[in-house]
Amino acid sequence: MQNPKILVAGAGAVGTFYASKLHQAGAEVSVIARTNADKIRKKGYFIKSILGDFTFTPVQVLDKAADYQDKADYILVASKALPEINLPEMIRAAVSENTVIVLIQNGIDVEIPLSEAFPKNELISAVANIAVSRESATTVNHQEFGILTIGNYPSGLSDKAKFFATMLNKAGTECKVTDKILEARWKKLLWNAAYNSISVVTRSDTKLISISPEVSMLADKIMHEVYNTAKAYDMNIPADLIEFFKAETLKMKPFKTSMLQDYEAGKPIEVEAITGNALRKAQKAGVETPCLQSMYGILKLLDTYNRKKLQK
Amino acid sequence: MQNPKILVAGAGAVGTFYASKLHQAGAEVSVIARTNADKIRKKGYFIKSILGDFTFTPVQVLDKAADYQDKADYILVASKALPEINLPEMIRAAVSENTVIVLIQNGIDVEIPLSEAFPKNELISAVANIAVSRESATTVNHQEFGILTIGNYPSGLSDKAKFFATMLNKAGTECKVTDKILEARWKKLLWNAAYNSISVVTRSDTKLISISPEVSMLADKIMHEVYNTAKAYDMNIPADLIEFFKAETLKMKPFKTSMLQDYEAGKPIEVEAITGNALRKAQKAGVETPCLQSMYGILKLLDTYNRKKLQK
Repeated sequence: MQNPKILVAGAGAVGTFYASKLHQAGAEVSVIARTNADKIRKKGYFIKSILGDFTFTPVQVLDKAADYQDKADYILVASKALPEINLPEMIRAAVSENTVIVLIQNGIDVEIPLSEAFPKNELISAVANIAVSRESATTVNHQEFGILTIGNYPSGLSDKAKFFATMLNKAGTECKVTDKILEARWKKLLWNAAYNSISVVTRSDTKLISISPEVSMLADKIMHEVYNTAKAYDMNIPADLIEFFKAETLKMKPFKTSMLQDYEAGKPIEVEAITGNALRKAQKAGVETPCLQSMYGILKLLDTYNRKKLQK
Repeated sequence: MQNPKILVAGAGAVGTFYASKLHQAGAEVSVIARTNADKIRKKGYFIKSILGDFTFTPVQVLDKAADYQDKADYILVASKALPEINLPEMIRAAVSENTVIVLIQNGIDVEIPLSEAFPKNELISAVANIAVSRESATTVNHQEFGILTIGNYPSGLSDKAKFFATMLNKAGTECKVTDKILEARWKKLLWNAAYNSISVVTRSDTKLISISPEVSMLADKIMHEVYNTAKAYDMNIPADLIEFFKAETLKMKPFKTSMLQDYEAGKPIEVEAITGNALRKAQKAGVETPCLQSMYGILKLLDTYNRKKLQK
């Protein structure tokens, strides 16, 4: 497949960054921009990156999937994981028989709506560990090297997944492949369920969480609960990952998690994808997760207030 | 003892209310007012009360204990329970041989500094369940009937304690006596440790806490942890008190706990008296209290930010 046709939907900073790298690798990349489409048509995107700044001009900039004038080889979906975002509807009009759907999102079980809506399409699930932020409608800032991990959902590794990874690696941004993407997802969830949740509840950056003995202990407990849940689903996660995460988090340059950034900006937070789905999986498997459950309840209340303010 | 001389120190809304009732009962009540002393000298206090509005003019309004021109039969201390408030220093200059010290505060182990500083003085410990709020420097609003429970610290019930209670009951506000005040304190702590903590962490009133299944479950767990701790100190607390508290809290007119009111007003919160001391007692007795510990850690971080803002 030379120069595949890629349509990008629901792209925030992370999605736009990977779209721009796919463009650099030679793909014909179009984007659906629900807001700011005109600005993007006029100026394209400017990507400030530690790998070198560059511009990214999509082939087509669309208001909606139905306007796409081509057959997509890949549709890349990279919206926030929020219950009110209907991903199948967002892309349905552009999905054809051979379209591979690639989902970059946080959380667990986030693939289910797409998997159920398009059972015959190949679905690639992806986990991003990268620091990018949106600086304006058309500017994305890539601050740190990062890794995208991809694999077929729920397992396996197709040629098209490998090809997708090859494009990104060719463009200089690391993409790992795995035939066990759910394990990668649970590993990331371990950290996210603990540190994203606690960061919002305490309004604290990763450093302050790490140096508070009681709060760090809470992070430890949440990670163990998620670990036990993952084990109940036969995920092969090394037992020392929790200690590794704690040590790494303490060493990191202090930062506010994406969930805390969203919360402080008054935006909805990914409470269901990151804590709610994990809690439901734990309950289904009969795993005790009292700390995760508490965090979920607290975050839901805090999220409700932000959402009420948004409605005003 | 006819018309005892009572000096009141560190009085917020609750202390001022009880001072005013002691005045109504015929006591010669003076107050130490670190702020607003001039206003109080000029106008006295106005007590808006469901028992009937009235004015309360203290015999002396003092800037500090050393200015007290009399020998106090009782010194009533009713400040918030904060580590930075040095209660012994606040009253030392007015404590004489026969002075009985009465402490109205939330939390556990709050009597220790006074008990250690004045080992020869009789110490009465008191727990208030009453809804009063300060409306201005000289106005207190008493919104709901309430009960003060008093007894000698750490146990026992002296004639002077009984007399103190008699005065309040005579003035029409209920005061119960007990020879086991620590049990009364632990009972109240059960509720406070759960609902005060959770209210701040979730920014929610009692109703919203009660109707969230996950958060209500957290309240349940915290109450059980405090209950287990109390049991380790041989407190006789009925096992069904937790269910009673949960049912009552759900039935109550929704309200913001005093800790949430303080937090939202940017004031320091009673995190040590209510959660920290309970946690330390649990650790000393080897009782597992993971939820209480988490709440303590979270509240400490949140309190730190409020305190930093206060310093600016």
